[in-house]
Amino acid sequence: MDEIIECVPNISEGKRREIVEEIIENLKKTGVKILDYSSDPDHNRSVITFVGNKQSVEKGVIQVAKDAVRLIDLKNHQGTHPRMGAVDVIPFIPVKNVTIDDCIELSKNTGKKIAKELNVPVYLYADSATKPERKKLPNIRKGEFEGFFEKIKDPDWLPDFGKPVVHPSAGVTAIGAREFLIAYNINLGTTNINIANKIARSIRDSSGGLHYIQARGMKLKDKECVQVSINILNYKKAPLYRVFEIVKMEAKRYGVNVLESELIGLMPMNAALKSLAFYLQLPKLTEQQILESKIYE
Amino acid sequence: MDEIIECVPNISEGKRREIVEEIIENLKKTGVKILDYSSDPDHNRSVITFVGNKQSVEKGVIQVAKDAVRLIDLKNHQGTHPRMGAVDVIPFIPVKNVTIDDCIELSKNTGKKIAKELNVPVYLYADSATKPERKKLPNIRKGEFEGFFEKIKDPDWLPDFGKPVVHPSAGVTAIGAREFLIAYNINLGTTNINIANKIARSIRDSSGGLHYIQARGMKLKDKECVQVSINILNYKKAPLYRVFEIVKMEAKRYGVNVLESELIGLMPMNAALKSLAFYLQLPKLTEQQILESKIYE
Repeated sequence: MDEIIECVPNISEGKRREIVEEIIENLKKTGVKILDYSSDPDHNRSVITFVGNKQSVEKGVIQVAKDAVRLIDLKNHQGTHPRMGAVDVIPFIPVKNVTIDDCIELSKNTGKKIAKELNVPVYLYADSATKPERKKLPNIRKGEFEGFFEKIKDPDWLPDFGKPVVHPSAGVTAIGAREFLIAYNINLGTTNINIANKIARSIRDSSGGLHYIQARGMKLKDKECVQVSINILNYKKAPLYRVFEIVKMEAKRYGVNVLESELIGLMPMNAALKSLAFYLQLPKLTEQQILESKIYE
Repeated sequence: MDEIIECVPNISEGKRREIVEEIIENLKKTGVKILDYSSDPDHNRSVITFVGNKQSVEKGVIQVAKDAVRLIDLKNHQGTHPRMGAVDVIPFIPVKNVTIDDCIELSKNTGKKIAKELNVPVYLYADSATKPERKKLPNIRKGEFEGFFEKIKDPDWLPDFGKPVVHPSAGVTAIGAREFLIAYNINLGTTNINIANKIARSIRDSSGGLHYIQARGMKLKDKECVQVSINILNYKKAPLYRVFEIVKMEAKRYGVNVLESELIGLMPMNAALKSLAFYLQLPKLTEQQILESKIYE
């Protein structure tokens, strides 16, 4: 069986549709299989999900980086989502017949090439990190694009690849291997950012919440509401339904309803079925009982 | 692209595992793709789900019928689910590149052969029915195996294929084409069959409930509870979550909880996602966001 690696570059453009389409069109030509892409104008950010083997994924993501560096100017970029680069972050995720070590190696090879060919300093993060304080992306990204012109001179924050010189329009990029995560946002029926922040703190690991949860409050201007923006790092230990129900419960104490939730990118079928099984009290539901996945080939 | 027909024979054996396994083993050899099979000892019935093209599905289901007629003796059969034949019912469902008319033709060809080769009288039902009163399976099955020795002599109930002589151990069989349905059972925390019957009446079309719902109360001796046994004939118009939530709501008025629900056979991915989207308030969830279905080939 073939190896499958998932790659999910986050680019700092979520408003200008034509830019995103150009990047997607060029990515298609590299031969990877694009599974999903979605843009958020409030975040001013797009998330592209594609799969392939080592060679094609590397080729594909270098193409994305080239186009993003050429088309995106961070000096003119504003959005609610923190960012430090035109290609802000590039995670590689093992899916099938590859190990996390394969993905670490791939992240280093790709990082080297991006630094060299595009003059964008690269930081290795997540399982590829070379120092403990570089494991978590928010630590690296702190100060964002504008702050990096100083930060990069700090001996503790020299890039892993490339010279310590921020690319004037494309900033810096984080690249690394990590296990699969689910990016999941919950919109609240209020414009009060404090409520979103309080709920985020109640569920996230770093504030004493659920072990595999990262979360932050965000203001969505387009939708006139606030959002709890969540990464589920282990969907088996922190299932979707539990995260959603806790947020709903915490929102109630402020008299606030959940408006809707959204999935950014993909989730495994099993994550979907486990949550459905919870709600329908359907403990024996299996993936083999789901029609399309077996019949359509 | 190839044609795909689904076939879901229901056989009147749900207790003796070795009998079901023998039928499954012989079915495998015919070259169809078995998607699921499950046995219910209380119902004393097994439901087998397989797919193939016209030729292979016909070959496969005739094999099932042969084995069931050989191995099952309805004179010694007891179970909570009504039945009239060793192979009780054989539906053909169009899935891909076939029409309901193709399935009607297939049901007639198969019915002719089963009547001729196995001496089991065959009734055409559902979209294959030759008279309006034969459309609904419960109408045909009324009186069950034991009653059929008289019923079959009634000029209104002559079989569509075969002589009007009930097979002494294998009874009669219904065969027909129908659209996809979801078989879905909800177990209640009570042994009071009246409550299951009342809830069944509240949701089923024939008693004034939801248009695409068939339902009946059943006693489950093995589990010491009662069940609302449901067919969802159109999962788009009568989504799973709505059926489940109405049953839960109606159960509450009797102070009864839902213990669990179960899916018999398969449901389309979209049926699963629509219900998950309801519970997670995730309106934009699409099948393209579900990982396995796209990546694993």
